[in-house]
Amino acid sequence: MASILPASNRSMRPDKNTYESPGWTEIPQYRPGCPQIHRKRSVYVKNPYLEGMDEDILYHLDLGTKTHNLPAMFGDVKFVCVGGSPNRMKAFAQFMHKELRLEGDGEDIEDICAGTDRYCMFKTGPVLSVSHGMGIPSISIMLHELIKLLHHAHCCDVTIIRIGTSGGIGIAPGSVVITDTAVDSFFKPRFEQVILDNVVTRSTELDKELANDLFNCSREIPNVPTLIGHTMCTYDFYEGQGRLDGALCSFSREKKLDYLKRAYRAGVRNIEMESTVFAAMCGLCGLRAAVVCVTLLDRLESDQINLSHDVLVEYQQRPQLLISNFIKKQLGLCDQMS
Amino acid sequence: MASILPASNRSMRPDKNTYESPGWTEIPQYRPGCPQIHRKRSVYVKNPYLEGMDEDILYHLDLGTKTHNLPAMFGDVKFVCVGGSPNRMKAFAQFMHKELRLEGDGEDIEDICAGTDRYCMFKTGPVLSVSHGMGIPSISIMLHELIKLLHHAHCCDVTIIRIGTSGGIGIAPGSVVITDTAVDSFFKPRFEQVILDNVVTRSTELDKELANDLFNCSREIPNVPTLIGHTMCTYDFYEGQGRLDGALCSFSREKKLDYLKRAYRAGVRNIEMESTVFAAMCGLCGLRAAVVCVTLLDRLESDQINLSHDVLVEYQQRPQLLISNFIKKQLGLCDQMS
Repeated sequence: MASILPASNRSMRPDKNTYESPGWTEIPQYRPGCPQIHRKRSVYVKNPYLEGMDEDILYHLDLGTKTHNLPAMFGDVKFVCVGGSPNRMKAFAQFMHKELRLEGDGEDIEDICAGTDRYCMFKTGPVLSVSHGMGIPSISIMLHELIKLLHHAHCCDVTIIRIGTSGGIGIAPGSVVITDTAVDSFFKPRFEQVILDNVVTRSTELDKELANDLFNCSREIPNVPTLIGHTMCTYDFYEGQGRLDGALCSFSREKKLDYLKRAYRAGVRNIEMESTVFAAMCGLCGLRAAVVCVTLLDRLESDQINLSHDVLVEYQQRPQLLISNFIKKQLGLCDQMS
Repeated sequence: MASILPASNRSMRPDKNTYESPGWTEIPQYRPGCPQIHRKRSVYVKNPYLEGMDEDILYHLDLGTKTHNLPAMFGDVKFVCVGGSPNRMKAFAQFMHKELRLEGDGEDIEDICAGTDRYCMFKTGPVLSVSHGMGIPSISIMLHELIKLLHHAHCCDVTIIRIGTSGGIGIAPGSVVITDTAVDSFFKPRFEQVILDNVVTRSTELDKELANDLFNCSREIPNVPTLIGHTMCTYDFYEGQGRLDGALCSFSREKKLDYLKRAYRAGVRNIEMESTVFAAMCGLCGLRAAVVCVTLLDRLESDQINLSHDVLVEYQQRPQLLISNFIKKQLGLCDQMS
């Protein structure tokens, strides 16, 4: 990455010549006694070239505007859940199928992206469940194409939540961290995006109200420690996260612990590998976004993940249960709380 | 990424207190009339902590030193081929099974990493075929664990080749590029690795003799344009590669073309997303490495990948055919050239 940072365009003021205008549409609804203005929050892309394209092929999703009727397939999507593992996202979709009491057997749920092995995607009513692989570049590709998909499908009022696994710092394994701010390896709330051969800095703010709503939901789930905290996002699982068990390691155990403790003092409670770019892109495109990760270990104590299969499965279900309860509440299905 | 670069340790002089000594073992073999010194080139890790670990769990491969007999399973591996797509790496393993005329039906080849959905791995005689997902972080995780695996299995004289897809610059789609040097978005032959909260610069040199050997092999394959050139590695598929069809685009078509033409003038012939970290890590660990990618389109002409299924499959087989011929030659199976 360059050591030269041009003037930060962190606020991303829209340039009328470059971007579409913000996607707010005011729809007045007057009812006797209840004058209200109802706003729909569109998913909007920030690319003036898209409008002029005859066809848009979402290559890594095996979908396209000519080959698929995207509004018919996805127009009712209100919640998108993303996570690294294809198996876990399929399991989540099957879980949501039951929780939303949809018709049919959720066991044979179809992978919408079966024509490619890059990502998988499942739809259960208004909930889309998508895998994104590991790391910032992998989730970035998926998000570009997902955001275009939601735009082409004319989706509005979409909430997107990353459900993941992570390493905790100073908290019990199995804790769930709801991210208030994603930070980089230097504990800064920023994402540095390389555009051609320039580096621009983007904000990694997440939706505070959403994070609080999720935290309030978590209070109804017993025996799962849940907290709001900063999440640090790295480009590497080993050296970049201070692990002593990689193929390469050029620092001491003392240096490792010093770094992790400094991260803790800066407010970091867990470490993963997708949150900064996730926050940056969703923020730019009008998607209300959250990150909810379970921690598999306390990095102050160990580096290796050595959980039994059953414990690992149970831990990975914790964010799914929280998000399921949140979604049901949003849909007014409170009597079906698990 | 930080804008502060500490003193480059590009040469990575081994520090005797920090690293294992270089993995060269001299084994004298004296035969009448043929006095020779035979050298075995070990795969070596650069982490003093590994030796003291009671157990090493290769978490994302679902393998481990206590649960698996790694020397028995992998000790004879001489060639490792890696690529992003699980399906493509399985197809390559099945192809190698036929090309090496191994016993049994290669169709039901077993995924060694079936217990995880992060990566897949297949073994056909001395050839290991492994998927790595998309992007630098994803391949980095796999390489750390693969290199440790080869080390634990006491493998020696291992050649590793990434076979991939890419975007070409100024060359016909379907061309195969053998990388001489991997460069970053700024056309520099370097990989910037974040270690804790410092940035170190690593060399991205690949094995020149191996690249030339592969190029010579390619001459025997008709109708596949093949060349040696620089490969640019980016962190992003859209904005970082100058695409005008992402969810976000803040530059003009003119800026895009200027950037790609400057890349061309700097020697870049194709763009992908793993080669710099691949070259850096393999170089540090004693693995003779190459990158061989087919180009799916000419980025000076277009951004979207719009190939028919059959053409896409045939293009993706081109690097596989070249590597298969190379491996057979190395194993002395020249009469079985396809």
